[in-house]
Amino acid sequence: MTGNPYDDPSFFAGYATLPRSVHGLDGAPEWPSLRALLPPLAGLDVLDLGCGHGWFCRHAAGEGARRVLGLDSSRLMLARAQEANAHPAVAYAHADLEAAEFPPASFDLAWSSLALHYVERLEALLARVHAALRPGGALVFSVEHPVYSAPSRPGWTKAADGGLSWPVDRYMVEGPRVVEWLGGRVAKRHRLASTTINAVLRAGFALSHVEEWRPSDAQIAAKPSLAVELERPMFLLLAARRAS
Amino acid sequence: MTGNPYDDPSFFAGYATLPRSVHGLDGAPEWPSLRALLPPLAGLDVLDLGCGHGWFCRHAAGEGARRVLGLDSSRLMLARAQEANAHPAVAYAHADLEAAEFPPASFDLAWSSLALHYVERLEALLARVHAALRPGGALVFSVEHPVYSAPSRPGWTKAADGGLSWPVDRYMVEGPRVVEWLGGRVAKRHRLASTTINAVLRAGFALSHVEEWRPSDAQIAAKPSLAVELERPMFLLLAARRAS
Repeated sequence: MTGNPYDDPSFFAGYATLPRSVHGLDGAPEWPSLRALLPPLAGLDVLDLGCGHGWFCRHAAGEGARRVLGLDSSRLMLARAQEANAHPAVAYAHADLEAAEFPPASFDLAWSSLALHYVERLEALLARVHAALRPGGALVFSVEHPVYSAPSRPGWTKAADGGLSWPVDRYMVEGPRVVEWLGGRVAKRHRLASTTINAVLRAGFALSHVEEWRPSDAQIAAKPSLAVELERPMFLLLAARRAS
Repeated sequence: MTGNPYDDPSFFAGYATLPRSVHGLDGAPEWPSLRALLPPLAGLDVLDLGCGHGWFCRHAAGEGARRVLGLDSSRLMLARAQEANAHPAVAYAHADLEAAEFPPASFDLAWSSLALHYVERLEALLARVHAALRPGGALVFSVEHPVYSAPSRPGWTKAADGGLSWPVDRYMVEGPRVVEWLGGRVAKRHRLASTTINAVLRAGFALSHVEEWRPSDAQIAAKPSLAVELERPMFLLLAARRAS
């Protein structure tokens, strides 16, 4: 996560206009699905990997989490989090997830929303997260789905019958993908779903649940533009547990 | 698996010409990856769900498996298996996987190659397979990858730069997919990767490994037509264990 676009003021200003920046968790359509994977938060020590504006940190504190540590590599993000989502139980700190060290057996939940696809050495990070969790602790995260990140020419195409397709290529070729987004160039890691899942297993976790997110019928009724997300998977959600 | 196309003599004749039918396991490019997921077979009781021509059954017997039960819903398949891959340790039997019952705690390995995407009630089958395995027993299987099975108009498209793409649509809409293959119409179940994995977990298994198969560089060098399989995932492989 070096050369972080989230530290570019113009990119950051664009990011700040996204529904999930303005409305927080309720502006993220995958939030209800992620929330269903969480343990009850009251009394927990929580680690947020890539906390962004801090919406989840404040949510966890509001649910009674004992202590929440929100880490991000963007200083603009951290300043915004401190401004928008300060809470006595929450601490925000600068960290590069590629290298961050955590105190052993100190957290009950590690959470990450759409941040781990920026991390190059995922398995090494997950091994450090595993050690940072107490036995029985939970890992819950979302990443961009590899069907979404794979294409060398990302975009919808229209078939003769008017139906939309998402053309996939280079799926099996893992590595960097640079996309134009919010007027900037963002470098992500394209990683197979299987690579992500195996990294979780090899780090010592027991997998509890994996989910290729889809909008619910109620969400589509409320916001018909979400219907296109039935054509391709956009997010991969995962829950796992440190067994011992 | 009712109205089984594999019991149609003309479809079956076409199937018999496929490399994996003629050359057995060595004709299946995903076999080396699947084999790497298997425990040592010597002394094991093995259940093969959808045994087809019986190539795996005979392989397992050749590796010293104690007893191998190959099940298939196609009587033509079973006749061919008996003819091509008979072995004193192998028994072939007719069974509909949607309903088949197995003796409890009687097998050390349940194996299935490209058969479970024909099964509608996968989770119920996996629960019966879990009960049929001894504690510590292994489940290893392959299915068509959902990126491969999803499209309503399956086929490659060529971009302006000549690159091939595999257009995906209806990914999130699970259910039957009818495709034309070998001059017949074959009805498969399109199932998300996450649904398959969660079915394994809910049946009581601990997931060991999941793999979106890709041809190796050596396989592509030996057979350049395999290179297109770098563009999209074709097979999903999975290994799990009955913990207790």
